[in-house]
Amino acid sequence: MPLDYALLKALPPIAARHDWTARDTMIYALGIGATDLPFVYEAGLSALPTMCGVLAYPGFIWKNPDYGVTWQKVLHVEQTIEIHGAIPAEGRFSADTVIESIVDKGADKGAIITTSRRISDGAGHHFATARGAIIARGDGGFGGGDPAAPSPEPMPESAPDFSVSLPTSASQAMLYRLSGDYNPVHIDPEVARIGGFDRPILHGMCTYGVAGRALIAALCGNDPARLASMTCRFSAPVYPGETIRIEIWQDGAGEARFRARVEERGLFVLNHGRVQYR
Amino acid sequence: MPLDYALLKALPPIAARHDWTARDTMIYALGIGATDLPFVYEAGLSALPTMCGVLAYPGFIWKNPDYGVTWQKVLHVEQTIEIHGAIPAEGRFSADTVIESIVDKGADKGAIITTSRRISDGAGHHFATARGAIIARGDGGFGGGDPAAPSPEPMPESAPDFSVSLPTSASQAMLYRLSGDYNPVHIDPEVARIGGFDRPILHGMCTYGVAGRALIAALCGNDPARLASMTCRFSAPVYPGETIRIEIWQDGAGEARFRARVEERGLFVLNHGRVQYR
Repeated sequence: MPLDYALLKALPPIAARHDWTARDTMIYALGIGATDLPFVYEAGLSALPTMCGVLAYPGFIWKNPDYGVTWQKVLHVEQTIEIHGAIPAEGRFSADTVIESIVDKGADKGAIITTSRRISDGAGHHFATARGAIIARGDGGFGGGDPAAPSPEPMPESAPDFSVSLPTSASQAMLYRLSGDYNPVHIDPEVARIGGFDRPILHGMCTYGVAGRALIAALCGNDPARLASMTCRFSAPVYPGETIRIEIWQDGAGEARFRARVEERGLFVLNHGRVQYR
Repeated sequence: MPLDYALLKALPPIAARHDWTARDTMIYALGIGATDLPFVYEAGLSALPTMCGVLAYPGFIWKNPDYGVTWQKVLHVEQTIEIHGAIPAEGRFSADTVIESIVDKGADKGAIITTSRRISDGAGHHFATARGAIIARGDGGFGGGDPAAPSPEPMPESAPDFSVSLPTSASQAMLYRLSGDYNPVHIDPEVARIGGFDRPILHGMCTYGVAGRALIAALCGNDPARLASMTCRFSAPVYPGETIRIEIWQDGAGEARFRARVEERGLFVLNHGRVQYR
């Protein structure tokens, strides 16, 4: 069954409501390797902004057979967070996930589906927007679809202004998954092998969180409240235990660009990153 | 106010009932540094037996002013677990904690208070007993009290049959505390300093869990269901990031003795350990 463009575009918002404790916020922080006290200690606990990538997440929705999405071939390719206000470290979070666009990249490439969710706290205060794009590699060529986003500008060719190396632990994915993404490709060697990987891979959103830590440290004086938005593309997976080097270029007041590579293999894992900060 | 022996001995059982999820079991395992799949992956998850040290724990009860215990001077000195049946990896756990004995070691030493709790699953099946002893260093010399336990036999002078070194991570206590012991001495440098430590110390029960991993690996073919009982004394704290060397002597069929030291400082941290296994 081909991807059902009309059905997907007409879907009502998918509601999610999650109770989130201070302990959950600390588990998230340790899951992305953060060990600074403000992120892991209930006395004065601050949420790291990349946590908005997992708050009130509706789960992996692409298994619904009505959608016509070959879910086994879905990859997360891009993620944006926009922070509009203070992120509570605990509370009841809710969001409605909507499908924003579906771009047909052709039968040989697939379809890019972009979703977004506005995340609110228990009082209905909308404090963040998360926007994610997947590529459904098996579902291109359905015909029609929305116009493609413009290609990203090339990255600077100059040396980066900041270069931050952050290690991950061999058990990083085992811990990160406890923030809600239990896809076995991140822990089960057999599932990873079937997926074409030598061993379990780190969650892209964990790498994203590690990059967020580097950006907050380099650009925001380690104050998470100063991060306003962050977007990037996922270009390759990290294996737990590898060290991630985040390269950052300042780009005008309160703006910067970034990418990340795995030191051990030299491979880019995040690319075309943009960040805004206050 | 002196320690009130009669009141403490007449206390009704202190009930605790906790809902415990598979995620909690995985957080406990990662908290003691276990990364073997059976302990951290929901597919075929097994509970590590030392988790009984934290299940249905009533919390730090010594702050009750009626007891006459100088709670600021309380230290955990001994811990025993006895496993009677399969430990569920999730469920509703309950236990009644009772005070077993109070020994007056004299005004200069303090009082040793031993408590025990029988831990049951949601169906009322009693699968483990946990017994802990504290020393109330400020409360000796109250007069009377129960007879002291016999001194432990000296440890063997021969070379150990097994010697297992297990590292801890710099963030080990930050993660372990999320299993329920939020004493700030394990995370807050200021509180640790007031307590007389250079920096935050690892939980004794985390060190105990690390030793349990070594015992299960060396004696039980890494099958946690084969551990029948484990007891030891706490002799000094570990700092997160240090490596713990567990020394094990077989002592007849299904029995062994153990102790543990910190490799970096040569100091004993667990001593007079005994373990029974099936």
